[in-house]
Amino acid sequence: MRKAVAAVMPAPDQPVELREYPLPELADGEALLRVDYSEVCGTDVHLHRGRLAGVPYPLIPGHVTAGTLAAVRGDLRDVYGVPLREGDVVTFLDVHRTCHQCWYCLVAKASTRCPSRKVYGITYGAADGLCGGWASHVHLLAGTRVIRLENATPRDFLLGGCSLPTGLHALDRAQVQIGESVLVLGIGPVGLSCIALARAAGAALVLAIGGPANRVAAASAMGADAVLDLTVMSADQRAEWVRERTGGRGADVVIEATGVPDAVVQAMRCARDAGRVVVVGQYTDHGEVAFNPHLDLNKKHLDVRGCWGSDYSHFHRAVQVAGHERLGAPWRSLPVREFRLADAGQALAAVANGEVVKALLRP
Amino acid sequence: MRKAVAAVMPAPDQPVELREYPLPELADGEALLRVDYSEVCGTDVHLHRGRLAGVPYPLIPGHVTAGTLAAVRGDLRDVYGVPLREGDVVTFLDVHRTCHQCWYCLVAKASTRCPSRKVYGITYGAADGLCGGWASHVHLLAGTRVIRLENATPRDFLLGGCSLPTGLHALDRAQVQIGESVLVLGIGPVGLSCIALARAAGAALVLAIGGPANRVAAASAMGADAVLDLTVMSADQRAEWVRERTGGRGADVVIEATGVPDAVVQAMRCARDAGRVVVVGQYTDHGEVAFNPHLDLNKKHLDVRGCWGSDYSHFHRAVQVAGHERLGAPWRSLPVREFRLADAGQALAAVANGEVVKALLRP
Amino acid sequence: MRKAVAAVMPAPDQPVELREYPLPELADGEALLRVDYSEVCGTDVHLHRGRLAGVPYPLIPGHVTAGTLAAVRGDLRDVYGVPLREGDVVTFLDVHRTCHQCWYCLVAKASTRCPSRKVYGITYGAADGLCGGWASHVHLLAGTRVIRLENATPRDFLLGGCSLPTGLHALDRAQVQIGESVLVLGIGPVGLSCIALARAAGAALVLAIGGPANRVAAASAMGADAVLDLTVMSADQRAEWVRERTGGRGADVVIEATGVPDAVVQAMRCARDAGRVVVVGQYTDHGEVAFNPHLDLNKKHLDVRGCWGSDYSHFHRAVQVAGHERLGAPWRSLPVREFRLADAGQALAAVANGEVVKALLRP
Amino acid sequence: MRKAVAAVMPAPDQPVELREYPLPELADGEALLRVDYSEVCGTDVHLHRGRLAGVPYPLIPGHVTAGTLAAVRGDLRDVYGVPLREGDVVTFLDVHRTCHQCWYCLVAKASTRCPSRKVYGITYGAADGLCGGWASHVHLLAGTRVIRLENATPRDFLLGGCSLPTGLHALDRAQVQIGESVLVLGIGPVGLSCIALARAAGAALVLAIGGPANRVAAASAMGADAVLDLTVMSADQRAEWVRERTGGRGADVVIEATGVPDAVVQAMRCARDAGRVVVVGQYTDHGEVAFNPHLDLNKKHLDVRGCWGSDYSHFHRAVQVAGHERLGAPWRSLPVREFRLADAGQALAAVANGEVVKALLRP
Repeated sequence: MRKAVAAVMPAPDQPVELREYPLPELADGEALLRVDYSEVCGTDVHLHRGRLAGVPYPLIPGHVTAGTLAAVRGDLRDVYGVPLREGDVVTFLDVHRTCHQCWYCLVAKASTRCPSRKVYGITYGAADGLCGGWASHVHLLAGTRVIRLENATPRDFLLGGCSLPTGLHALDRAQVQIGESVLVLGIGPVGLSCIALARAAGAALVLAIGGPANRVAAASAMGADAVLDLTVMSADQRAEWVRERTGGRGADVVIEATGVPDAVVQAMRCARDAGRVVVVGQYTDHGEVAFNPHLDLNKKHLDVRGCWGSDYSHFHRAVQVAGHERLGAPWRSLPVREFRLADAGQALAAVANGEVVKALLRP
Repeated sequence: MRKAVAAVMPAPDQPVELREYPLPELADGEALLRVDYSEVCGTDVHLHRGRLAGVPYPLIPGHVTAGTLAAVRGDLRDVYGVPLREGDVVTFLDVHRTCHQCWYCLVAKASTRCPSRKVYGITYGAADGLCGGWASHVHLLAGTRVIRLENATPRDFLLGGCSLPTGLHALDRAQVQIGESVLVLGIGPVGLSCIALARAAGAALVLAIGGPANRVAAASAMGADAVLDLTVMSADQRAEWVRERTGGRGADVVIEATGVPDAVVQAMRCARDAGRVVVVGQYTDHGEVAFNPHLDLNKKHLDVRGCWGSDYSHFHRAVQVAGHERLGAPWRSLPVREFRLADAGQALAAVANGEVVKALLRP
Repeated sequence: MRKAVAAVMPAPDQPVELREYPLPELADGEALLRVDYSEVCGTDVHLHRGRLAGVPYPLIPGHVTAGTLAAVRGDLRDVYGVPLREGDVVTFLDVHRTCHQCWYCLVAKASTRCPSRKVYGITYGAADGLCGGWASHVHLLAGTRVIRLENATPRDFLLGGCSLPTGLHALDRAQVQIGESVLVLGIGPVGLSCIALARAAGAALVLAIGGPANRVAAASAMGADAVLDLTVMSADQRAEWVRERTGGRGADVVIEATGVPDAVVQAMRCARDAGRVVVVGQYTDHGEVAFNPHLDLNKKHLDVRGCWGSDYSHFHRAVQVAGHERLGAPWRSLPVREFRLADAGQALAAVANGEVVKALLRP
Repeated sequence: MRKAVAAVMPAPDQPVELREYPLPELADGEALLRVDYSEVCGTDVHLHRGRLAGVPYPLIPGHVTAGTLAAVRGDLRDVYGVPLREGDVVTFLDVHRTCHQCWYCLVAKASTRCPSRKVYGITYGAADGLCGGWASHVHLLAGTRVIRLENATPRDFLLGGCSLPTGLHALDRAQVQIGESVLVLGIGPVGLSCIALARAAGAALVLAIGGPANRVAAASAMGADAVLDLTVMSADQRAEWVRERTGGRGADVVIEATGVPDAVVQAMRCARDAGRVVVVGQYTDHGEVAFNPHLDLNKKHLDVRGCWGSDYSHFHRAVQVAGHERLGAPWRSLPVREFRLADAGQALAAVANGEVVKALLRP
């Protein structure tokens, strides 16, 4: 019988290693995905460092993943009601088991806060089966939302990867009007996607602050009108740099996509009065930061909006955007480095130190 | 010639003193108000301590004020186009000179952040004339928005006073749905108004936390379903008290109306995931406070909304609410102490130490 | 073996008749409800006349229903995750099988337009089993959302019945601000609920237009500040009646709850410029009506909002409201007539001719 | 003394004629604009046919206009507070005298419905002075909002002209999300601008229906992904054409920009369930049209939004968009025909019969 191979994080701070697993028996409504591409993202770096709560190591990382259906058992359909079949090129929503039965799902309509929510490659561990994308195969459990990649290759889609639905959710929260100015703090994959999406949403001016140099170049390529290297100025000088480009007022919208607590306060200080701040970068606990509620929030009449996870609607539109000739173009220009599964550890290191803009894994 | 008398703050931390002023010559579109009632609010305490920036002492405090038109010069009309006349019982929007010409007024539509904005009794000083309500008369400058008190006496209206438009603005920002739970932090006049307004907006459960004891009783009278004395529990215990009453989740909406920076973080921690926090209490700079952007904001998918000042729409509806038999009833039950102008200093002290719930000034 | 008894509509325009059915075998996750109360609503009148498309006669009508769990098989939980047990007094969301898998459910987040949606007592027929409330028992199929009536009796809850979630949905769409004026067209159960809910949401003025006389009295009792008998004036005079009470402008919000096409145009004409119209009464096809897009819509800068069905969030809050001492009080004052199952035909007639305000069925 | 020359509509259906007027004396805060470009738009055709109410003929048409300040008297500043000076190249908001004092301006915040609102070239007649753009000079009355054309020539700005702020207002109302489909009905200047702006706002698919052939070509050039000639299919076939391109559902957003009442109903029928319809084309009264409130509105859970006029915020952003390298590009590709003042009548005829896409007037 054939085996699957996966790159596994045995425990926090342990080297990633290749392991073999038997291919799963499929239950009704399940499928087996042969992975074409997965990715290495900032969350994977945090997973490797043990910074997320509730992760069941050993873990097969890799949440957003695309490939080809190797087997389908029973009735599995996409949102259009069209049956999915062997050979279809697909991706799937990494979020699984939001229950659609609890108060958060049904009354608050905030499924990203559903207590039953599980995420492939993050809160499903190797003990749950082949539930991560750093593998030759992924076991698509019943209820997984699968979607065809009609106009994008798996590689095209992974160029955006998890940053694309995350960025779309952030832009939904930002409510950009045509002609506004948007500042993006952080130019990792999420920040880069937010740059391209802010532009797609009609921003007349997209500013970005981050580093290192290779990402600064990528930020320009994604459509930022001006990019400031984070390291060359103090926080106050950076805020001044923003004000100089926004009529002295600050940006209409600031999207924080850094992971650094201090950036949330910077975001508030770089936003204009009565503007909007979307916080999409604080996915792990890096501790506290001090702010001034009078000067930074109330007197500014600011809207500060947390943005946690994404749901199927964001994922669906991410697939649309990736496959769209015009809207998807920025991601296709991203500098990418591809790694084999056996080199997943190197990929992690390259993402951690920022030496690659985007790292893809190819089994 | 007759004189006006006013209670004046000569400078921060100086005793309030009575002074005489000549009655003003009215220019076209101006009016003279004979004051029936003004109030002493928390902002006046801050003014007395010199905690607000840009205040031109000596100052005649008293921003929200009601009385009788003693004289009108030229064409002065209300929003319905009806001319205002001598003898009309009126109040006026304390905010003046929002320019309706600048980027904030016209493009951002955020008139409370208009740089030209002036406030009677706060940023107009005695040098500007009789521009505060702690006086026998107020000089209503051209462009002041004056409104008749059709169904409320001046005293009725001042029972809400400045807390009523402020509270209405906070409730607009809160977007309460029928059946939701609302927690109000702080039970000074603004908090008390927010309690009554949250109930008016359809909240099924209104919780409040604050002190001292006389205000706890007032909070219940205003419609809070449960009130917790701030002093009897730790912050963590208070958050637990809220969760016990909200299905373990926290309140759908938290309105911060305390003035204490720490309360903003408490507000975030007492809100349910994907809930809303309105910050309406941070009117002066009391320094910084630390929060955890991951746990308190992003992971909670929270909306945190600053709420600065109020505009004519809030003021107009405040007059409507105060004069409304059903909606205005809570304020008419508030325990009030009246002071004469000569006792304004005592009134300030009584507000500062919380010994009165609401202090009115009557010339 | 015990039998269930149900009042059945054999076909459109046929007399309702009692029929016996075997009690169902329960599958896993299913339950059997012993009905305490169901209701006869306007939709039932339309069903009896064959005016709804896609109804599988013979039909056991009765969509919103409450009672006692006679049997539960397997794991059935409420939204709080608490298991439901025999003897629990409950109601259930009449909407079933919104799939949470299709484009409307997942991308548009408009579950009331899910093509798979089924409604107990309307699109489930007798051939589907005991799936209507005009019966001694209802078969609660797997996936049915069941909720305990903690603070309301079944009778209390049915006083609002289907009009309560419908009205809550309409009020969500209406976005009433404290102090606004709301006009409700139609004073059947949905209109009556909208009156009470508009008041609960903070309206300072609630106007209503409808008939006949017994409902006019009920509209006042539910909280309308003024009620106009539909029959005593022309449409133009009615619009004038509204303007006289709203400063000449029309109502800030108009909620159409009549079922008559012409009322939709009336609603637009009775709304103030830049106001909101919610259309919640057009549940069956009564043909076309003419309007003037320039005068009635574009020049008025109006928002006209269709409001179709309701989802679990509305139903959940309906249960909360019904069981709430203050918010639920209006419905407890409604004049109600109770009918036995055998008299369901009489109940239908009494609802059809408006001789009862609210008709309950009690097995 | 120098004279101004203007093209005047003496009365409805009378030939346009050139007339001379003395140059005005400027009062404080006023300016004289030497016109570089004005335009002939659909409203001008309606004005010529006498289809608008309240127009004080004889009329100097031309509402949106750009040129050079020939004289400035006293203190005239832009929204940034920068004084305007002779020689500045500017445009101005054609809407004047929204009072910022009435209930609509101050409470409803709906300045486009202010009863005092006047529009240059439409509700200011020749008797009011040089208050239309079909002239060598325009008299900019005190209170007129003037804005510099920093990055656009007067000709560039007039390529969008009045359709640009109108379209921006429509897109604000439409709330397009990245990836949505937008159908534009009508491909005159407003429709063409809506096409380009829908694309700018992130639509993944922009469809358009209209005519004649020269405009069909322009619609493609402005960014429509597919354009249907209105004349080749029936209304039902056109709706089918839309559904075929939108997964069988209809468009997420439909923007009606035709002026034909029937198109409003078409718009509702071409929108998907739970979608949005913006009505921006019904600027004159062309009578009634029949629709089905059940099928077209309520059952579809549709939002139908009137969109009347525009305010300074839309105008300000229009200037930004026109002068923006990327966002303004579509308009710079529009086929334009320029006319001299003496040929204004020919320009009107060419606009009326659709033989030009865009007609500019150049004194």
